[in-house]
Amino acid sequence: MSLAREPSRPVTLRELASLYDCDLDGDGETVVNRVATLSGAGADSVTFLANPHFRSQLRGTRAAAVILQEQHREDCPVASLVSANPYATYARVAAFLHPPHDIEPAVHATAAIAGDAIVAESARIGPQVVVGSASIVGEGAVIGAGCVIGADVRIGAGSRLLARVTVLDGVTVGERCVIHAGAVIGSDGFGFAEDEGRWVKVPQLGGVTIGDDVEIGANTTVDRGTIENTVIEDGVKLDNLVQIAHNVRIGAHTVMAAMSGAAGSTRIGRRCKIGGGVVMINHLEICDDVMFTFRSVVTKSVREPGVYGGSLPAEEAQRWRRSAARFRQLDSLNERVRAIEQAGRDKPGGGTGTRKRDHD
Amino acid sequence: MSLAREPSRPVTLRELASLYDCDLDGDGETVVNRVATLSGAGADSVTFLANPHFRSQLRGTRAAAVILQEQHREDCPVASLVSANPYATYARVAAFLHPPHDIEPAVHATAAIAGDAIVAESARIGPQVVVGSASIVGEGAVIGAGCVIGADVRIGAGSRLLARVTVLDGVTVGERCVIHAGAVIGSDGFGFAEDEGRWVKVPQLGGVTIGDDVEIGANTTVDRGTIENTVIEDGVKLDNLVQIAHNVRIGAHTVMAAMSGAAGSTRIGRRCKIGGGVVMINHLEICDDVMFTFRSVVTKSVREPGVYGGSLPAEEAQRWRRSAARFRQLDSLNERVRAIEQAGRDKPGGGTGTRKRDHD
Amino acid sequence: MSLAREPSRPVTLRELASLYDCDLDGDGETVVNRVATLSGAGADSVTFLANPHFRSQLRGTRAAAVILQEQHREDCPVASLVSANPYATYARVAAFLHPPHDIEPAVHATAAIAGDAIVAESARIGPQVVVGSASIVGEGAVIGAGCVIGADVRIGAGSRLLARVTVLDGVTVGERCVIHAGAVIGSDGFGFAEDEGRWVKVPQLGGVTIGDDVEIGANTTVDRGTIENTVIEDGVKLDNLVQIAHNVRIGAHTVMAAMSGAAGSTRIGRRCKIGGGVVMINHLEICDDVMFTFRSVVTKSVREPGVYGGSLPAEEAQRWRRSAARFRQLDSLNERVRAIEQAGRDKPGGGTGTRKRDHD
Repeated sequence: MSLAREPSRPVTLRELASLYDCDLDGDGETVVNRVATLSGAGADSVTFLANPHFRSQLRGTRAAAVILQEQHREDCPVASLVSANPYATYARVAAFLHPPHDIEPAVHATAAIAGDAIVAESARIGPQVVVGSASIVGEGAVIGAGCVIGADVRIGAGSRLLARVTVLDGVTVGERCVIHAGAVIGSDGFGFAEDEGRWVKVPQLGGVTIGDDVEIGANTTVDRGTIENTVIEDGVKLDNLVQIAHNVRIGAHTVMAAMSGAAGSTRIGRRCKIGGGVVMINHLEICDDVMFTFRSVVTKSVREPGVYGGSLPAEEAQRWRRSAARFRQLDSLNERVRAIEQAGRDKPGGGTGTRKRDHD
Repeated sequence: MSLAREPSRPVTLRELASLYDCDLDGDGETVVNRVATLSGAGADSVTFLANPHFRSQLRGTRAAAVILQEQHREDCPVASLVSANPYATYARVAAFLHPPHDIEPAVHATAAIAGDAIVAESARIGPQVVVGSASIVGEGAVIGAGCVIGADVRIGAGSRLLARVTVLDGVTVGERCVIHAGAVIGSDGFGFAEDEGRWVKVPQLGGVTIGDDVEIGANTTVDRGTIENTVIEDGVKLDNLVQIAHNVRIGAHTVMAAMSGAAGSTRIGRRCKIGGGVVMINHLEICDDVMFTFRSVVTKSVREPGVYGGSLPAEEAQRWRRSAARFRQLDSLNERVRAIEQAGRDKPGGGTGTRKRDHD
Repeated sequence: MSLAREPSRPVTLRELASLYDCDLDGDGETVVNRVATLSGAGADSVTFLANPHFRSQLRGTRAAAVILQEQHREDCPVASLVSANPYATYARVAAFLHPPHDIEPAVHATAAIAGDAIVAESARIGPQVVVGSASIVGEGAVIGAGCVIGADVRIGAGSRLLARVTVLDGVTVGERCVIHAGAVIGSDGFGFAEDEGRWVKVPQLGGVTIGDDVEIGANTTVDRGTIENTVIEDGVKLDNLVQIAHNVRIGAHTVMAAMSGAAGSTRIGRRCKIGGGVVMINHLEICDDVMFTFRSVVTKSVREPGVYGGSLPAEEAQRWRRSAARFRQLDSLNERVRAIEQAGRDKPGGGTGTRKRDHD
């Protein structure tokens, strides 16, 4: 059963327009009580057009109203809620219409809470939870079923740990964070010193500091620092299966899509957008406002904001194999071209039209 | 201790041949009670030859019998069970000889089951399990130790959740599914609307619908849909550490190997084979019967069945570095070749043998 | 709160020099009680210089002492502890100064231990733990909160499972291992036999054998063998989110960084260094002392020790797109060069300077 199918709190279009600062085109008394897709919407639904990809579906919608930009108003067959940023407005309307279920503050009987842990009266601790010694769970925080919180941990007010989240000793989580199931915060960094073919473990003594309004995806791992802390600043959003190594710092409002990772001590700026599967090697400095496209491998520091890329798209296999084989011969191909250029220059009248280049 | 080493249920080769529709070559009264590898098998074991890679081991086997194709019958020094599909026959024989341990239906005393959840009499609920409000666990289902099942979840008859699996609110799992430890089904999709350098969370209101006979690997994550459901059709097999984003649909009997992923709203056809580490960007349509080889990056929809590839194999590092350096100069190399071609054409008698091509 | 900030056990520089076989340059009576970074150290701290990257910070350090190599002794403004391997010495000093908290042997009241499991008197079993039938937990082992241990498992003496680790039936873990939160050991291998467009599950009957002094990262997955065991030899270190498929064998003292993986039946030698995100396809043989750099795709067996590489570094997106477009035309570019070479050879006096090559 999709949660979106449960009716929630009804509201008129006029109220929505007023709450979210939209221009309303249509009957303000129409009542809606849910969000829906352009194609799936009915007379009780509000929907949105943000991605031009879906423009063709606008004409056929049977929604009560569509949240859209001024430029699409004329093409809308039903009421419009005109917004400069329809996707953000949609996000707010959806949150209004589909509020989370009320959570009654309580500590489940099966939870194991250390005697010296401090759990706010308004917090909720689910079944099979563990809260370790001297840890603090803030006002209104929700610790879902099966979560394990170590010793000396702080979970800020209003933060939600969905289920089976692990937060290890000495980690600080800010306010209004959301941490999804299976995430591990504060695992040891991968630090070993080589000594005559053996590995000596380097104690991982730092913690992890997570700011406010951070979201961390399912089964994502964030390692504690080696000496100082791994730091995730306010508003950062990490998707599922992301790896954050020890001593990394992620600047405020940066997003990292699924299966991306940052190796030890790399510092990522603010408002960066890290695509799915991107990996950054260790000890890099990435400045603010950098975007890496899907599956890039980042091996150098980046000092200029902008878009950086680096993956080769899949092709029909035979064609791919030919390109891949030629790739292996690139150095030799380059030599062949150089030889031809040289021959051209050595000939009487040679060199015409062949530009000399510094090709190393 | 390997489970394969426990003797299990003895059976004659005649019975096996009859049960699994094989031609038997050898003594039908021979009794076997376990499976083994070609090289590890003894007189109580049945083994198989499916991968030609192992053909050289056939002659030396000391198994009681080998499941193999007609073409290898002559090379087999012991009894043969001849099958058109030895690997599938082996799979069935192994399941027969090594049945799972009997599980006694019971609810462990440490499980926390919501008062209004419905657990079938024949189901088994392990220790430290949580089952949320209004959820249903079907006949013969096994919910292993430490699993967390949210509210309004349905687990179909005969499905097994190994241990520490999380199934969040509103998810439906079909019949006879197997979900491995640490998997998370129904985490929020990664949806945020950008608004003046900040991110507004887009509520993830859809659920996840999982068909029958689906297998989901350890620590794999499947996000709930944004508005409608993420859908995994019947017979799909996902390996470990796979990421399925919101609104993805995976067609029946498709397999995805470890560390592969599909980004938001991508639709994958039926009977596709997605290699390890393959990633697909969002909003793609992949038709039925497509294979992507290891570590491909899929950036375009695929409308023709077939094999698609896209990774460059590792090489000795110095050689690799030369190719990689030349790769960065490819556009300039192309210009140099173009200049040579142009010079050839401009010359008296030029152009001989240089084919003109549309090389953009 | 960072753990490193807690004062721990005070020691003189003379004692440290003697314990860890360093030359001391400075006042042997100086007392230190913690480790710190070069830039963060104060008068009670010992720090180190191992990575030349940080040499510039040496002059400004306010540490009590720096562990460093002979060659940096002169540049050190404070006391020096001279070591041939400063990083390994640092690791040992840090472990001395910051010992783990004492763990009192106990079985938490909420743990569910099978009646026939054997838990050593000196072991510690945390809250919400499950230990299955006939399993053995060795002397001094620590099973952290929320761990699930199946049936017939052996956890060797002194091993620590941090929290929410799953060790499934029949797995053996050696002595002094560390397994981080969320790791899954003994999940089924991904084995299915294709049969007329459907998949028949191949029972995964082997176990997993893990040697001594192995470390396994957070949310890493290690599959059980199909018939025989998956094997991880002594001293292996696996980082977070690593995937080890069925029947893999990893040689002693090999390290695999985050998000790397080995597909089925691949055998990796001893003392190999597998970079982050490296994947190895199935049935490979990798000899001892091989290093794969970051994000390589390994598709062939490696029989010579050495360094192998294979990823293309990200670049500014437009520049990348040009190279990527030319990559797709590589076969045609090669043909164009071949045509020019041919034209040169066909011409009177042709061929001068163009070297003939075997370019397939």
